[in-house]
Amino acid sequence: MKRIVTLTTDFGQGDYDTGVLAGVVLRLAPEARVIDLSHAVGRHNVLEGALLLDRCTPYFPEGTIHIAVVDPGVGTARRAVAARLGRQCFVGPDNGLITLMRARALSAALMVEIVQLNRPEYWLAEVSPIFHGRDIFAPVAGHLAAGTPLEQLGDFITDPVLLEIPEPQRTPSGWRGMIMHVDAFGNLSTNLAQGLLAGAGRLKVRVRTTQIDGLVRTFGEGAPGDLVALYDSSGKLSVCVVNGNAARRIEAQVGDPVEVIVE
Amino acid sequence: MKRIVTLTTDFGQGDYDTGVLAGVVLRLAPEARVIDLSHAVGRHNVLEGALLLDRCTPYFPEGTIHIAVVDPGVGTARRAVAARLGRQCFVGPDNGLITLMRARALSAALMVEIVQLNRPEYWLAEVSPIFHGRDIFAPVAGHLAAGTPLEQLGDFITDPVLLEIPEPQRTPSGWRGMIMHVDAFGNLSTNLAQGLLAGAGRLKVRVRTTQIDGLVRTFGEGAPGDLVALYDSSGKLSVCVVNGNAARRIEAQVGDPVEVIVE
Amino acid sequence: MKRIVTLTTDFGQGDYDTGVLAGVVLRLAPEARVIDLSHAVGRHNVLEGALLLDRCTPYFPEGTIHIAVVDPGVGTARRAVAARLGRQCFVGPDNGLITLMRARALSAALMVEIVQLNRPEYWLAEVSPIFHGRDIFAPVAGHLAAGTPLEQLGDFITDPVLLEIPEPQRTPSGWRGMIMHVDAFGNLSTNLAQGLLAGAGRLKVRVRTTQIDGLVRTFGEGAPGDLVALYDSSGKLSVCVVNGNAARRIEAQVGDPVEVIVE
Repeated sequence: MKRIVTLTTDFGQGDYDTGVLAGVVLRLAPEARVIDLSHAVGRHNVLEGALLLDRCTPYFPEGTIHIAVVDPGVGTARRAVAARLGRQCFVGPDNGLITLMRARALSAALMVEIVQLNRPEYWLAEVSPIFHGRDIFAPVAGHLAAGTPLEQLGDFITDPVLLEIPEPQRTPSGWRGMIMHVDAFGNLSTNLAQGLLAGAGRLKVRVRTTQIDGLVRTFGEGAPGDLVALYDSSGKLSVCVVNGNAARRIEAQVGDPVEVIVE
Repeated sequence: MKRIVTLTTDFGQGDYDTGVLAGVVLRLAPEARVIDLSHAVGRHNVLEGALLLDRCTPYFPEGTIHIAVVDPGVGTARRAVAARLGRQCFVGPDNGLITLMRARALSAALMVEIVQLNRPEYWLAEVSPIFHGRDIFAPVAGHLAAGTPLEQLGDFITDPVLLEIPEPQRTPSGWRGMIMHVDAFGNLSTNLAQGLLAGAGRLKVRVRTTQIDGLVRTFGEGAPGDLVALYDSSGKLSVCVVNGNAARRIEAQVGDPVEVIVE
Repeated sequence: MKRIVTLTTDFGQGDYDTGVLAGVVLRLAPEARVIDLSHAVGRHNVLEGALLLDRCTPYFPEGTIHIAVVDPGVGTARRAVAARLGRQCFVGPDNGLITLMRARALSAALMVEIVQLNRPEYWLAEVSPIFHGRDIFAPVAGHLAAGTPLEQLGDFITDPVLLEIPEPQRTPSGWRGMIMHVDAFGNLSTNLAQGLLAGAGRLKVRVRTTQIDGLVRTFGEGAPGDLVALYDSSGKLSVCVVNGNAARRIEAQVGDPVEVIVE
C-alpha cells in the first residue's frame, strides 16, 4: 500500500534533520511516499501548526498520514498520540495540533479515534528525550503506513488536549474577529471566514488605527503599496499590502482585534 | 505511468503551503513523483523563474511536468496555460515563464503546443482567486501526469506571453551584456554565454567601476576574497568573489551592463 | 530496485538548483526515491557536513546512497569518490565528508570500499568545473542506484582524505571537549558523548565564563531563558538556552573549549 506520509515541523530553515524523519519512515514502509508539507511553522507555535494542518490536509488523498513535530513539551509528561481524524491520520504530540483537523472530521460526521502512544515496541530502540519526532512519531507513522492498525499502537483516549480557538463575535454593526497568523510576507490572516461574511453587503474592515473600505478579490485589483482586505486561499478575511508588508505598515500582530462593519 | 512533476515557486522560505501542491497532484496521479525544484525564486520575479526553468529542466527525464507558480497576476485576466515544450511539459500562468523553455524547444526543432486552461472540469471544485497554483495548476498537472492528453485541458493558443530577454551586443572591442541574476551568495550572472566568448582570446571584464583581467576556470583558482570572472554552471559569464559577495563588493545589481573586451 | 538517494548540500536557502540533482538521478534510476536530507550545511563547512552524515545516515535503510555536495575544492585537483561504508553508500568530493561514516563502519567491522571517480562514461557528457554535484556525483549516484557495481565507477583507493576530529581530553577533574557545532537556534553541540560521561556522577559544565551545575534531560525541565546542559538528539553534551540562543548569550563559537567537572 503506497501511503503518503507528510512532515510538518517547526525546525525552520537552519536545522538540518528533517530528512532523517523520512529515513525512519522508509525503513519501516519502503513503499510510502514522504512529502515535506512545511518546516516553517513558527518555533513552538502549536496554534500555527494546527491552522496549517487544517488548511492543507483536506487537499491530500484519503489515508494520508500527517506527522507533525511542533513539540515544546518533548520529553516531559505530555502524551504522544496517533489519530484517525476522518479520512486521514495524524501522529505527533498531544498538545492541540489536532484541534482543527478533529473538529473538521466531527463536523462532517466522520470517525475520530485517538490512541496514546504507549507501546515502545513500535518506537526506535533508543529514544532521545528531545527528539520524539525521529524516535517515536516517525516510526509509528512508518508502522501505520506499513499497515499496522491504529489500535495496536496504543490505548484509546477520549480526552486529547485541544486548543481554544477564538471564535468571531457578533457586534451591533457586524463582527469582531482577531488576527490568527502573520505570514512571512506580513499578510494578516484572521478568524473571520468567507462563509460568515459573504453576502452581508459592503464591508469595512478596521484593524489597529486603520480602516479599509470594501474588499478586493485578488492582489491584482490593488496597486502596489495599497492596503487591501481580501479572502485568503483558505477563505479567511486577510489584510495585506499589495507587494508589501501589512504587519509592518500598520504595526499589527497575532491577537490584535479586527472589526468588520457591515453596511 | 510514473511521471515526474516538479514544483517551482516564489513562496520563499517563510510560506508553508508548498507541500499542498504535492497533495493535489498525488490525489489525481498517485504514481507521480513530486520533486521540489525550487521555492526560492524572487517574489514575483518572472524573469528569474524563466531563467531557472531554462537552466534546470534539460536535466530532467523526458515527459517531466514542471509546475511553476510565479504569478503576480493571479486572479486577474491573465491566462493560465499548459504546454508541451519539446520533451517536457509546463503548467502555470501565461506571463512569460515559458519563454526560454519554448525557445530551446524551437531551436531544437521540437514540438511546441500550448493550451489555455479554460476547462474548469480539470480544476478543483473551488478556485481561490489568489492561489491558482493549488486550485488550477496542480490539478491540471495531476491530470496530465495521469494520462489526460494536453489538448483536452483547454484550447490551443499561439500567442503566449513572452519575455523580452536582452541579448548581448557586439562592440568594437568585444561584447556588451548585462547582469541577469544575482544569487543568494552575491554572484553576478550575465547573459554572455560561453559559446559566444570561448576561443575569443584573453578577456577583460568590466562591470561598474571594476575591471577583471582574464577568467578562472573554478573558484579554487582564486584566493578567498578575490574578485573573479568565470563561466557558471549554466555556461554564462559570471562575476564572483571567492568565498564572498560580489554584488555587495562592487555594488552591482540586475540590469547593470557588463563589458567584455577581447584582446 | 528502489534505492533511496539522499541529498546533502551547503546550497542554503537562496540557491535554487538543489532539485536539479534529483532530476539527474531519476533520469538514470527512474525507480529511485530521492530525499532531501539537508541543504543547510554551512557554506564550505566540511566538518559540519561530516557531523550531519554521521548523525543522520544510521536512520536510513540499508543500501541508501548519500550524495553530499559540500565542495569548496570543486574543479581543482581534489578527487571525487564513491564509497561503500558499511551498509550505505556515499558519493561526493574526497575532502573528509566521509570521515565519521567510515569510522562508524570500521568500528562495526563492516566493509569499507572507496573508488576514485575517474571514469567519465558515468558522468554527464558536459562537466561544469564549478558544479560536480550535478555533473559527476548525481549521475554516479544514479548509476549506483540503477545497479552498476561500485567497482565499475572508478579505481579503488585506500588513502581518502580524512578530517582530524578533535577528541575529548581527560583532565584531573573530568574532561575537556570543544564546541563542534552551533545550530540555527544557537544551541552549542560538543564532542563530549553521553557514553563517555554517563554514570560519572553529578557534572558541572564550564564554557566561556559560565558554569552550569548539573544536566537536565529535556528542555521542558528548564524555564524559558534558562541556560541548561543536556544530551542532544545525537547523544552529545549540548549547551542551550530554553527558548533562546546560547551562542549569543554566552558569546560562544565553534572551537571554544568546554570543561566537564565530575563531582
